[in-house]
Amino acid sequence: MVSIRKKISVIGSGFTGATTALMVAQKELGDVVLVDIPDMENPTKGRALDMAEAAPVQGFDARVTGTSDYGDTKDSDLVIITAGIARKPGMSRDDLVNTNAKIMKSVTKEIVKYSSDAIIVVLTNPVDAMTYTVYKASGFPRERVIGQSGVLDTARFRAFVAEELNISVKDITGFVLGGHGDDMVPLTRYSYAGGIPLEKLISSERLEEIVQRTRTGGGEIVNLLGNGSAYYAPAASLTVMAEAILKDQRRILPSIAYLDGEYGYQDIYLGVPTVLGGTGMEEIIELDLTDEEKKQLDKSADSVKKVIDILE
Amino acid sequence: MVSIRKKISVIGSGFTGATTALMVAQKELGDVVLVDIPDMENPTKGRALDMAEAAPVQGFDARVTGTSDYGDTKDSDLVIITAGIARKPGMSRDDLVNTNAKIMKSVTKEIVKYSSDAIIVVLTNPVDAMTYTVYKASGFPRERVIGQSGVLDTARFRAFVAEELNISVKDITGFVLGGHGDDMVPLTRYSYAGGIPLEKLISSERLEEIVQRTRTGGGEIVNLLGNGSAYYAPAASLTVMAEAILKDQRRILPSIAYLDGEYGYQDIYLGVPTVLGGTGMEEIIELDLTDEEKKQLDKSADSVKKVIDILE
Amino acid sequence: MVSIRKKISVIGSGFTGATTALMVAQKELGDVVLVDIPDMENPTKGRALDMAEAAPVQGFDARVTGTSDYGDTKDSDLVIITAGIARKPGMSRDDLVNTNAKIMKSVTKEIVKYSSDAIIVVLTNPVDAMTYTVYKASGFPRERVIGQSGVLDTARFRAFVAEELNISVKDITGFVLGGHGDDMVPLTRYSYAGGIPLEKLISSERLEEIVQRTRTGGGEIVNLLGNGSAYYAPAASLTVMAEAILKDQRRILPSIAYLDGEYGYQDIYLGVPTVLGGTGMEEIIELDLTDEEKKQLDKSADSVKKVIDILE
Amino acid sequence: MVSIRKKISVIGSGFTGATTALMVAQKELGDVVLVDIPDMENPTKGRALDMAEAAPVQGFDARVTGTSDYGDTKDSDLVIITAGIARKPGMSRDDLVNTNAKIMKSVTKEIVKYSSDAIIVVLTNPVDAMTYTVYKASGFPRERVIGQSGVLDTARFRAFVAEELNISVKDITGFVLGGHGDDMVPLTRYSYAGGIPLEKLISSERLEEIVQRTRTGGGEIVNLLGNGSAYYAPAASLTVMAEAILKDQRRILPSIAYLDGEYGYQDIYLGVPTVLGGTGMEEIIELDLTDEEKKQLDKSADSVKKVIDILE
Repeated sequence: MVSIRKKISVIGSGFTGATTALMVAQKELGDVVLVDIPDMENPTKGRALDMAEAAPVQGFDARVTGTSDYGDTKDSDLVIITAGIARKPGMSRDDLVNTNAKIMKSVTKEIVKYSSDAIIVVLTNPVDAMTYTVYKASGFPRERVIGQSGVLDTARFRAFVAEELNISVKDITGFVLGGHGDDMVPLTRYSYAGGIPLEKLISSERLEEIVQRTRTGGGEIVNLLGNGSAYYAPAASLTVMAEAILKDQRRILPSIAYLDGEYGYQDIYLGVPTVLGGTGMEEIIELDLTDEEKKQLDKSADSVKKVIDILE
Repeated sequence: MVSIRKKISVIGSGFTGATTALMVAQKELGDVVLVDIPDMENPTKGRALDMAEAAPVQGFDARVTGTSDYGDTKDSDLVIITAGIARKPGMSRDDLVNTNAKIMKSVTKEIVKYSSDAIIVVLTNPVDAMTYTVYKASGFPRERVIGQSGVLDTARFRAFVAEELNISVKDITGFVLGGHGDDMVPLTRYSYAGGIPLEKLISSERLEEIVQRTRTGGGEIVNLLGNGSAYYAPAASLTVMAEAILKDQRRILPSIAYLDGEYGYQDIYLGVPTVLGGTGMEEIIELDLTDEEKKQLDKSADSVKKVIDILE
Repeated sequence: MVSIRKKISVIGSGFTGATTALMVAQKELGDVVLVDIPDMENPTKGRALDMAEAAPVQGFDARVTGTSDYGDTKDSDLVIITAGIARKPGMSRDDLVNTNAKIMKSVTKEIVKYSSDAIIVVLTNPVDAMTYTVYKASGFPRERVIGQSGVLDTARFRAFVAEELNISVKDITGFVLGGHGDDMVPLTRYSYAGGIPLEKLISSERLEEIVQRTRTGGGEIVNLLGNGSAYYAPAASLTVMAEAILKDQRRILPSIAYLDGEYGYQDIYLGVPTVLGGTGMEEIIELDLTDEEKKQLDKSADSVKKVIDILE
Repeated sequence: MVSIRKKISVIGSGFTGATTALMVAQKELGDVVLVDIPDMENPTKGRALDMAEAAPVQGFDARVTGTSDYGDTKDSDLVIITAGIARKPGMSRDDLVNTNAKIMKSVTKEIVKYSSDAIIVVLTNPVDAMTYTVYKASGFPRERVIGQSGVLDTARFRAFVAEELNISVKDITGFVLGGHGDDMVPLTRYSYAGGIPLEKLISSERLEEIVQRTRTGGGEIVNLLGNGSAYYAPAASLTVMAEAILKDQRRILPSIAYLDGEYGYQDIYLGVPTVLGGTGMEEIIELDLTDEEKKQLDKSADSVKKVIDILE
């Protein structure tokens, strides 16, 4: 049968979008179209061209192109949305939410127009509400609209634990539920080093410090950079989700998924363990939670609900 | 025998330096220290931390740290210099050269102090003169001080040819001598697609256009970006040179190497085909040139000499 | 769109078939079905299971299964044929040809029955005639039936040159036309080290020795092994062809392709430079040959014709 | 500093040894020397040459050579022992143990003579006793002599669980202690899918079946093959241990390690969780065991002791 390369469109050519495009191309997951608004067309083309020129040296076979024309995204298998504004000093949360929601709706309209069968992964913050917005705007089934937060949160947690124990990152796992950042619900009892529960290797005080550092991991980078936010680890997180879907790997990864009764919630997007494979979010894995965990997850769900309520 | 990870220091935490650090870490060539001036210490730490947090997701075992303290580079196996300023509007070339030369001297002093056995690869422009400056300032043998330009120039050429022929970048090779950009001396007769000389596959007019586009490839990206210059392909180019050295691959790659009679030049750094391996620049390969090629190379050498003469 | 893993069937579970299955799985090109005759069903299942148990450690996501039931190959994207007998002492060439031709016909019938859109790559010797047999038996267009010999011949040539020059195999290329082994037509003028024609780096006497060693490269391994023939390099060669097709890379690789006038031949399979991509053998590249090269290629074509004539 | 390639010697050029050599070379861990007895010199050279000819196609930079002269192993960083005989029908266990112990002593003498600083990894069965034999014969500290069994046992377990749950092998982990095969002590409470304890995802009856299948996993392959035993997964297991050591990854992997009081045992080699890094077996991780687990481990230790007692 004819083999056709997959096509991945990345919306937003900022650092995260561009780095995601690079990592997706490095893994030869398919050809990449980097998209931004007309005002950014030339820089977008510039970044894409720069990546295309890295391909011969790194030896990856993937075309990378930049554009401001959604027509170029036609028949994408996967669309990753990184577009949106960051919260600026003096901006109210409601303004941020509504501005980014407007962007989500506009972007989604274009995606649906050209790639009605695509799977969409959302990174834009506040990510739970923005994924919800894309879901509603797309009319896609929930399998095909998911958000990223847990892969990144656990990546940070794993990096901190690996450093603490001086053990390879390959052997550290983490587990989170709920929202991103402050609303993150860590399940340290499901977090391990070489399969050994971390609680047996790290004191509970120190582990709590690591959890807390993870919660504020995005802010730590923002504070260090002074101007801008993290993009390497977010891009890597999006790429591993893209890989699980495009290569139909059926990986267990945390996603922001639409809940229809799972964990006792309705009509909400929340971070839960999922199976990602060729059809997108193929399963939600429901776990028994302790009372404390359930309480934290409720709080996380409340936060998301409040943001969704802001949406006009 | 005890296996100790290699250590690679990248001087300059701008986009090129940071992307180089990422790519070196992705390939698990060793642990990476990203260095910048004290004023940039926090952003440097932020970028390094962001990369370290990408490691668990991408599965690479390499510590990445940011610093402004050269003491942290102690015992580096390889040092990559990307530091320096870009030419700003209104700045004379002499000013650029002298400012960057001053930076090279200061950086080199620190490198030598902490890693007297390191191999140094220079990217800072004007790269031929800056590599010369580092060579003189370091007192290192020529094997251990080289510059990058030809890997990038051929990468661009290969990308353009691959697009022109709609053939995998893996099967396209290019060959250049001399300086970077305008002074580049392309040897299209040594450039192939699947081993077939390009001259048999592409008309001479079209090939000349591609050569010309390659010459101005850096400027093309600068113009598109509007603000800044290429960094993905430059970082990939530095990384492949680092890999050839750190893994002792004895690859034939173009380097800016110190000529001591080769090709008829003395006491100059110029782009020539070299063998890169565990001791650095292990061999210079001398080719017979046509009169036209030799004329172009003379012109390229003259340009470099003129810049070197500017150096105080 | 739903992402479905590619499916690759490897016919023949001997060392070459099994090693090919491993390498295809390692590269995550898709799920692999290893097929052999009913008498070999258990060993085939054993090898496949052993590979499947290597997957968690090597980290590849590819199911590998063994079977003697062609029903399990249903809807394969690619089928690689390694089945067939080796020439035994006292066996006439005609017997070998006719026995393997019978196997090809029987295997092809099953492939066509279950995977009428598959692309087929043939390794069984004498490979030109066996590819011809599969082509005729399948009724497939020539794009979808190719044979392997040139990738292996050039791999051997490249290994010998890399050793001779003490240069990375990554930088050595080779170029052959015509049949496998004795009938190989080497184009040393299209063979390079780092883009430099080998003729400038190796004396013509030494180069001729290397060419001669390449011609008899299969026999060299047979003689060393004492019992059996090469399988690592043949499997790697099949795998790179599979990758070019399944990832639609449009690579320039030598294939045994059906000639319909190209190079002046009709109704014959012969080794020529081709473009391999998503539809199989997408293009035959025609080169101007010297009189000597053309004479050798004629001889090679004659040899193939003679074997084809043996076919009942 | 000069970068010198690592050197890995693989003793025994049978299927496991040869496949290990291939996988070590594919990962560019260093140059590989495949060693066998003088009677096998030519086949050993043949296999090595075949691999070397695969290098250009697979793109790995690693020299692979075959020899029967231990002088060629001089200054190896790592030596992997796969040599030894398999138990034949009618052979008593004592005969097997003593024959292989004799081989271990002879091999170790040669290793020590040429590579007194090497780290040794043993695969030969019965592996606990053979590792003990090599340890005693080498006079090396325990850090530098380890055996392989747990990586393979958990690989099999992971493959079976991945199939059971239809989940990527990347997300399944397993945990075993004690001896190989029948004496394996599975810690299913430390085994997970995506971090979720398997006991929550698989019924205890089914999980026990999978554990039992793992115990007899080697025999399952032997029975299927009819003639010979597994080699793909064993080779992959040795390779991941080699990688952890040679790249100083400090991975938590199960090894057969010399116990000097750990877990309450003295002067015995037994499978335990260890940290593998640049100096070899850098740490033994001690876990609290349940009474049942401790009982099983005692039984496993008894088995090993009995075999050690056979050793003359």
